[in-house]
Formats: sequence, structure tokens, C-alpha cells
Amino acid sequence: MTNERKDRIGSVLSKRQNDLTVVLENVSDPHNISAVMRSCDAVGVQEIYVLNTKIPRHKKWGAKSSSSAAKWLTIHQFENAEACFEALRKSYSTILTTHLSSDAVSLYEADLSARIALVFGNEHSGVSDEVRAMSDGNFIIPQVGMIRSLNISVACAVSLYEAFRQKQRAGHYDRQKLDTETYLSLSNQWGLIHEENNP
Amino acid sequence: MTNERKDRIGSVLSKRQNDLTVVLENVSDPHNISAVMRSCDAVGVQEIYVLNTKIPRHKKWGAKSSSSAAKWLTIHQFENAEACFEALRKSYSTILTTHLSSDAVSLYEADLSARIALVFGNEHSGVSDEVRAMSDGNFIIPQVGMIRSLNISVACAVSLYEAFRQKQRAGHYDRQKLDTETYLSLSNQWGLIHEENNP
Repeated sequence: MTNERKDRIGSVLSKRQNDLTVVLENVSDPHNISAVMRSCDAVGVQEIYVLNTKIPRHKKWGAKSSSSAAKWLTIHQFENAEACFEALRKSYSTILTTHLSSDAVSLYEADLSARIALVFGNEHSGVSDEVRAMSDGNFIIPQVGMIRSLNISVACAVSLYEAFRQKQRAGHYDRQKLDTETYLSLSNQWGLIHEENNP
Repeated sequence: MTNERKDRIGSVLSKRQNDLTVVLENVSDPHNISAVMRSCDAVGVQEIYVLNTKIPRHKKWGAKSSSSAAKWLTIHQFENAEACFEALRKSYSTILTTHLSSDAVSLYEADLSARIALVFGNEHSGVSDEVRAMSDGNFIIPQVGMIRSLNISVACAVSLYEAFRQKQRAGHYDRQKLDTETYLSLSNQWGLIHEENNP
């Protein structure tokens, strides 16, 4: 591996965030999933949760494609909402769903620099009642247009970039946040991926 | 038209912004264009500019589809960059392109509450040299990931929502911004569209 490549990997890993994640509940369109992963990579989200209780487990993430973000992320898959939330609670203190409800706060009023998980639901039915009941609240992306719905990849990107903005202001990108073990493990793994792709 | 419908149209028009627009230069994927239009509608952008110097003029925007945002927007099409910029300069004091360059400012440092046009370029080649030369500067969406590019519909949504955030703080959604003539003309037009779709 060249020094340039090592530097690149080191630079990206030094900005990976251990306190922000995305949960995709029964999101079925592969294009949406890969777009969400790309946004995660862009803002430094390392771990994402894929919860499929109503649709089959996803088989692959297109990890062979050079434009796929899946190979730079740690993906946790669950078929059971309770098990998923048990895992989430170990790392995140707040779990918010995107759901239009009277008690939903605006994205811009939520504290996204806290240890937080953001849940996005199925393209048609949204976040399930089961998952909402286990979460800590809802947030909405304000909309003032005639069409009152956003594509999930757009909604997720807007949410993640608002988190990026808040976290950047709070200095979250100025210091390494991954623990040393995770940092070294990912560094090794990514070095190998780079070599496979650039023999 | 029911009162509910009238109220809805009035509420949306009262939040339409006359000082923020998007320019799409040779953006070719119809999915990207329709996603951009949906984001425009969501944050209250009324007018957008489509500049096609290298690809054929777009024939339709799927305006028949009920989910299409095109019917709620005023779309200006140009085949000539100079003519497009002449029109833009009449309404917008700053024109910024998305372009990775050393003099690019971060999206979060740009004043998006000013009278501003944001230019997004072709999916592969980006904004042309010609258009960059006529613009006032560049902005970038910060990225800290391994993949250093965002889909145009994601980039546009993130930019428009940062504009929304800044404009909301500056009170731009608290007062009607369209002039009375435009407001009444759109109100009539939208009422007819509503009646066509809901006979």
C-alpha cells in the first residue's frame, strides 16, 4: 500500500463517528439503501443497522462495485426489532424515528451531536408501531411544499448533513473518536480492500 | 375547489421564496431532475432554471404524474448559457456553482439567505468552464468519507435544506415573498391543476 493510500485511510478513519448511526427498518429499494450508505460514508458514520422484519434479509450490498459505500461501513443486520434495539441501546442514548406526529420535533431542534440513532422506515408504510414504541421520540424534516413527502435517500441525507453541521460545530471531527482497537481493525481491513481493487 | 384545498394552496404560496433558485446544467438523468424538483417544492423554491447546452431539451417533466413536483414549479429552459445568466442576473445577486476547487467555500459558510442561485452540473463532467467563468464563486458540500462524491439529487437536497435552515432563522418563511401578481397567477393555475386531478 502506498503512503498516499495509507494517509487517505488514516484521514477518513480519524473522522469516523462512534456516536451517530442510521437504522433502516424494512427499507426495500436497493437504490435507496445504497444511497443511504453513501451519505453515511460522506459524513463519517461507520456503523449502520438494517432491520428487516417484513422483507427478506438483504443478500449483498453491491460491495464489488467500486462506487459502493458498503465496503467502508460496518453493517449490522437484524430480523428482530427487540434484538436490534438491545444492540442499539449499548451504544446510543437516544433513538429517534422519522414519523409525522404531533409530538415530533423539527430536525433542526433535535440535538444531533448526542449519542443518537436515527430510524428510517419502509418506503410506503414508514416506521412500524413496534419500533416507534421502543424509540425515544420522533423528528420531522420541515416541508412547505405541495408534495408532503421526501424520498428516503433525500430525507436521510438531509438528516445526516444536519448532524454533520451540528457535530462539526461541536468539534466532533477534530479528534479521533473510534477506539484504538476499532481503528486498527478497520485500517487493516480497508488496506486489504484497497489492494484487492488496485493490484 | 373546496376551502381546504384553497387553504392548502394559499399556505404553500405564502411560503414560496423569490430569492432562491436552482440551475441544472446538462443534468441528464430524469430521476435526478425529478428528485431535485421535489426538493425545490419541499423548501419553497418556485422557479428553477434548466440549461441544456450539450444534451437535448427536455420534452416533459412527468407533469401528469401526481407525484411530480414539476407542476408546482416555474421552469425556465435555456439552450444558451449567456441568455440563461442574463435572466438569472435580473433576479439573483449571487450565482454559486458546486465545484471542487481551492477557492470553494463550504456550504455552511455560504450566505444562503441572500438572493442566490445554486448551479449543479452534469452527472459526469460537473459544471462547465463556461458557466463557472460567469458565476460568482464555488461552494462545496464537505465530505469526510472514502467515496468523495455525492449523487446530484442528494447534493441538491442537502444544499436546499441548508438554505431552508438559514432562511427560516432569518424569518423568510414568516411573510409572503411572492409579489401579488405572481401569487394570484399561481393560485389560479394551481386551483385548475387541483380540479383536473380531483374532478
